[in-house]
Amino acid sequence: MNFRKVNIEQQGKWMYSLSEQLYPICRSITGNGVRQTLSIINDLIPLEISEVPSGTKAFDWEIPNEWNIRDAWIKNPKNEKIVDFKKNNLHILNYSGPVAKKVELKELKNHLFTLPGFPEWIPYRTSYYKLQWGFCLSYNQYKDLEDGEYEVFIDSDLNPGSLTYAQCYIPGKSNKEVLISCHICHPSLCNDNLSGIVIAVNLARLLYMTKPYYSYRFLFVPGTIGSITWLSKNEDKIGNIKHGLVLSLLGDPSAFHYKKSRQGCSEIDQILEYLLKSRKNSKILDFSPYGYDERQYCSPGFNLPVGSLSRKPFGEFPEYHSSADNLDFISPFNLSESLNLMLDIVTVLEGNKAFINTNPKGEPQLGKRGLYDNVGGQGQSKYFQMALLWLLNLSDGNNSLLDIANKSGIEFEVLVSASKKLAKATLLK
Amino acid sequence: MNFRKVNIEQQGKWMYSLSEQLYPICRSITGNGVRQTLSIINDLIPLEISEVPSGTKAFDWEIPNEWNIRDAWIKNPKNEKIVDFKKNNLHILNYSGPVAKKVELKELKNHLFTLPGFPEWIPYRTSYYKLQWGFCLSYNQYKDLEDGEYEVFIDSDLNPGSLTYAQCYIPGKSNKEVLISCHICHPSLCNDNLSGIVIAVNLARLLYMTKPYYSYRFLFVPGTIGSITWLSKNEDKIGNIKHGLVLSLLGDPSAFHYKKSRQGCSEIDQILEYLLKSRKNSKILDFSPYGYDERQYCSPGFNLPVGSLSRKPFGEFPEYHSSADNLDFISPFNLSESLNLMLDIVTVLEGNKAFINTNPKGEPQLGKRGLYDNVGGQGQSKYFQMALLWLLNLSDGNNSLLDIANKSGIEFEVLVSASKKLAKATLLK
Amino acid sequence: MNFRKVNIEQQGKWMYSLSEQLYPICRSITGNGVRQTLSIINDLIPLEISEVPSGTKAFDWEIPNEWNIRDAWIKNPKNEKIVDFKKNNLHILNYSGPVAKKVELKELKNHLFTLPGFPEWIPYRTSYYKLQWGFCLSYNQYKDLEDGEYEVFIDSDLNPGSLTYAQCYIPGKSNKEVLISCHICHPSLCNDNLSGIVIAVNLARLLYMTKPYYSYRFLFVPGTIGSITWLSKNEDKIGNIKHGLVLSLLGDPSAFHYKKSRQGCSEIDQILEYLLKSRKNSKILDFSPYGYDERQYCSPGFNLPVGSLSRKPFGEFPEYHSSADNLDFISPFNLSESLNLMLDIVTVLEGNKAFINTNPKGEPQLGKRGLYDNVGGQGQSKYFQMALLWLLNLSDGNNSLLDIANKSGIEFEVLVSASKKLAKATLLK
Repeated sequence: MNFRKVNIEQQGKWMYSLSEQLYPICRSITGNGVRQTLSIINDLIPLEISEVPSGTKAFDWEIPNEWNIRDAWIKNPKNEKIVDFKKNNLHILNYSGPVAKKVELKELKNHLFTLPGFPEWIPYRTSYYKLQWGFCLSYNQYKDLEDGEYEVFIDSDLNPGSLTYAQCYIPGKSNKEVLISCHICHPSLCNDNLSGIVIAVNLARLLYMTKPYYSYRFLFVPGTIGSITWLSKNEDKIGNIKHGLVLSLLGDPSAFHYKKSRQGCSEIDQILEYLLKSRKNSKILDFSPYGYDERQYCSPGFNLPVGSLSRKPFGEFPEYHSSADNLDFISPFNLSESLNLMLDIVTVLEGNKAFINTNPKGEPQLGKRGLYDNVGGQGQSKYFQMALLWLLNLSDGNNSLLDIANKSGIEFEVLVSASKKLAKATLLK
Repeated sequence: MNFRKVNIEQQGKWMYSLSEQLYPICRSITGNGVRQTLSIINDLIPLEISEVPSGTKAFDWEIPNEWNIRDAWIKNPKNEKIVDFKKNNLHILNYSGPVAKKVELKELKNHLFTLPGFPEWIPYRTSYYKLQWGFCLSYNQYKDLEDGEYEVFIDSDLNPGSLTYAQCYIPGKSNKEVLISCHICHPSLCNDNLSGIVIAVNLARLLYMTKPYYSYRFLFVPGTIGSITWLSKNEDKIGNIKHGLVLSLLGDPSAFHYKKSRQGCSEIDQILEYLLKSRKNSKILDFSPYGYDERQYCSPGFNLPVGSLSRKPFGEFPEYHSSADNLDFISPFNLSESLNLMLDIVTVLEGNKAFINTNPKGEPQLGKRGLYDNVGGQGQSKYFQMALLWLLNLSDGNNSLLDIANKSGIEFEVLVSASKKLAKATLLK
Repeated sequence: MNFRKVNIEQQGKWMYSLSEQLYPICRSITGNGVRQTLSIINDLIPLEISEVPSGTKAFDWEIPNEWNIRDAWIKNPKNEKIVDFKKNNLHILNYSGPVAKKVELKELKNHLFTLPGFPEWIPYRTSYYKLQWGFCLSYNQYKDLEDGEYEVFIDSDLNPGSLTYAQCYIPGKSNKEVLISCHICHPSLCNDNLSGIVIAVNLARLLYMTKPYYSYRFLFVPGTIGSITWLSKNEDKIGNIKHGLVLSLLGDPSAFHYKKSRQGCSEIDQILEYLLKSRKNSKILDFSPYGYDERQYCSPGFNLPVGSLSRKPFGEFPEYHSSADNLDFISPFNLSESLNLMLDIVTVLEGNKAFINTNPKGEPQLGKRGLYDNVGGQGQSKYFQMALLWLLNLSDGNNSLLDIANKSGIEFEVLVSASKKLAKATLLK
């Protein structure tokens, strides 16, 4: 596997353009928006799409009725359409039931959601599990609403149907799996989580062209209910998951934030700690049970080694869950940087073997194998020779290449290359 | 158990007034002073009082003869009583044998103890295990003594008798014990250790009105020989001691100092570390084999999880073991603050359970149980919801509430309250 | 064992004078220079000298042909001898094969080694395992060489012979061994490694006059091939090695540098950490597989608890492997300081026992044994009493005296002396 040849800049543009295509779709935790999204992705990578009927039990949960919406608006007393779902799908309280009636402003206000702190932005709000109806709008618009009778119309339905999710499985040499999960339930919001989706799609596309050691499972699931449903339907597969990442908030320009798995010292945690050391201002956060679907993968009954990768830290930015998280908030360049980190992660994960020194008593004579300077003291390629010495000294079966990188300060890639030379000389196995 | 209703200010006054009552009594490691002290305490909490005869073996030690004193004075060449035990019981070298004779100043000085650095204070000195006689006086008085013949008189006796100690046992739901120990051998000295005694008495009084989970054993023992004697007579009970504290120096205004048990990471150590985090300037000290009776409880043959709580650190203040450690050195307010910390300790100790999440696979659906916001993103009582999520995630049997408080940063009391809601919803057991 | 009576200043002069005697000899990894060196040492301490024939296998290595040299020079076009081995044995590329011919300057330059950064110094270079010939000279001389035909002459031979090494074994009460290793293959170079040799010789001489607990094995071996050969011939003895040090670079005035063994927490590592705490500016370095023969002792097949002691850190000084590492670069005073540290190391190593408190329940009564103040509060020799209390409290078989020194902050020597008093009183065993 060699990702060095990938044109990262080009990939950035490709991912941004896919984001543009997915942006207008009104997604939710169920419904045709999810199906339409998965259909577009299915043209790019092979998906196995599942439909789980409403009413199906998933541990403590139950698949809710399916939600579909066609239109929604508010007309003011002058009969002007002042809020229009067709202009921005954030205007609807996601999962609103149908309504068609006239209401006084005072009653209407019980159904309106705004962001007074950011008066130009429309908030994103949901009510999946309690039937209600509502609209979201900018505070500027809200505060100028005049008294009188308003007409509200929501052409939606909540009927038995199914919850839709998809997987893309890339078989590797081993049946040990790497889980990459992203949520697909947000409507027109970019960083959260079109960025996670397009990076997952792109990584899957690139991995498809290789023969990796690990098998890779990409999950495209609605948040919470989706990952719980997947877990409940795939308990037999969970033992194979050796590493995992939840992807979200990867299109903005912030430094990377990695939240460790609940285990706190799993290999994926170590890999991110290693890779983020050289990424300025990036931060490693301890696990907490709040955030994205790592909450489910790391619930105590599973406790999987799954961390969460993002740039902006979860929830801690004003644009979060608002109309300001739009196509201007992400960029091809930022997406390409995030993809690049994902490629580095895969590279380390795939290359992180533990070797055994076949000649553990004293150092082997590197000189006679052309692996050492002949004139003592004439230091050339010292750094590479140090890599050879560290590998020989620490390859006792207890140290992976990543351990050796951390102990020696030598770059992982140099160790990989040195380990190949030593393996070729049968000094490592 | 709810100590919230305790009027702490009132308790402070009560403890100070008990200190006033106990202050004039001349205590030692044996004798009637100890009996008189225990008799007063016995009117407040039920004591089991033990008398251990002189000559009894206690591990490497032997109960000494009992010491009682009625009077003691020095008269100067002008026949003026210049040092008088009846005015301050610190004037006598504690455990002095009887004497009645005339001596020249030069010889007398071999039997006098002073504090030249604090010339107005009388030191407190003892000679329990080597028979001698002596007086303690202020350096100012000492340096003005004129040559001539002095008359010294000590009406004391050292005869076979017994060593007296007492226990107050408060049975809990479990026979696992919390040991609270204080020493009762000091004469008119307040911070060391009337403060420890009155806080122990008060805590016992408050616990008596509750039905605690743990059983509580309060020990009122003379220092060193008393705790060693108690240990030697109660080896069968020691296995039940799960937590313990030695109390002393709790009436002065300093920040709290907690010296950890020899184990260094016992639950009582963790609790104090947790509670002192929010008490400004307080300090956690590593165990050392010098101080009060924790020396005995933490000797290697027992190694009990017993720490030592004080305000002033042991020995490190000039008033220590001098007449300046008097009723002005302690205050009702300081005693009340110390009692308050003790109530917090008991609260955490009693509440520090480890739960099991009954629904460990994925998160349970809190919304359908009324434990979660219905409109996503409308953060109310976020802090309480975070407590719920942390409890569910970490309740795998390995994490106590205190562990969860430390990992999550959420207050212990909020976790207790959240754990009750989850237990009621049968999500924790 | 009491090294207090050693006149350290005198020892410094003795070691410097031995360095002067050894300095002119042209050593290499084999040959008569090594034999001559060992013969001088053998007059001072009893050596067991081994000769291992060329061609003998030693793990991955093979003993090379023996190298001996009698003369070597370069004559310029004017027939002037401009480079002369007899003036400085660094002039020859160590292990050069024989040559006698005329060459043009351009060709000659392929065989010359210089140090342009330090134009007055002659570098030290070797070519043990690839046959070539060469000379080392100052850059000043090199840059002024004029075109023309030069005559080169090296009267050396490389024939089957043997590799020579020596051991000095000092039997102790136990057959557990302390390994002290130094390399003897460098020609006229002082800090690297006459300093290591003379300190090893001197320490062996002093130990010979004592009856130590440990047995001490001093190795005088050529670097790399010598230690590997010794290891290959003594695999049966290796299990006895409980501690070890590689000595080099001990004659310069720098602060001490100790590189830990690969184990990283062995007793010798702890001892050096303890002793260097009070040596200003000294540094503890993590193990790395680069340096002297600790590379071999710490190879994964042996992983012995062998650290490396030096003053200048390995390789990080300009004089390293050049003619500037001469008799002016080391001094009697520096050698004496290094010896002093070695004596401290041996003292702690020999005294570092773990005792058992024979009276572990409560404190024993020290007063009746004359080990405690009789008048409480009259602190004399508090420090010594604290040593007694720490020893009694921590002597549970799990804490060595060094552990107790680290936990208590009390000096190792005071603990040794206190432990003797307690052992005499049968309170420790």
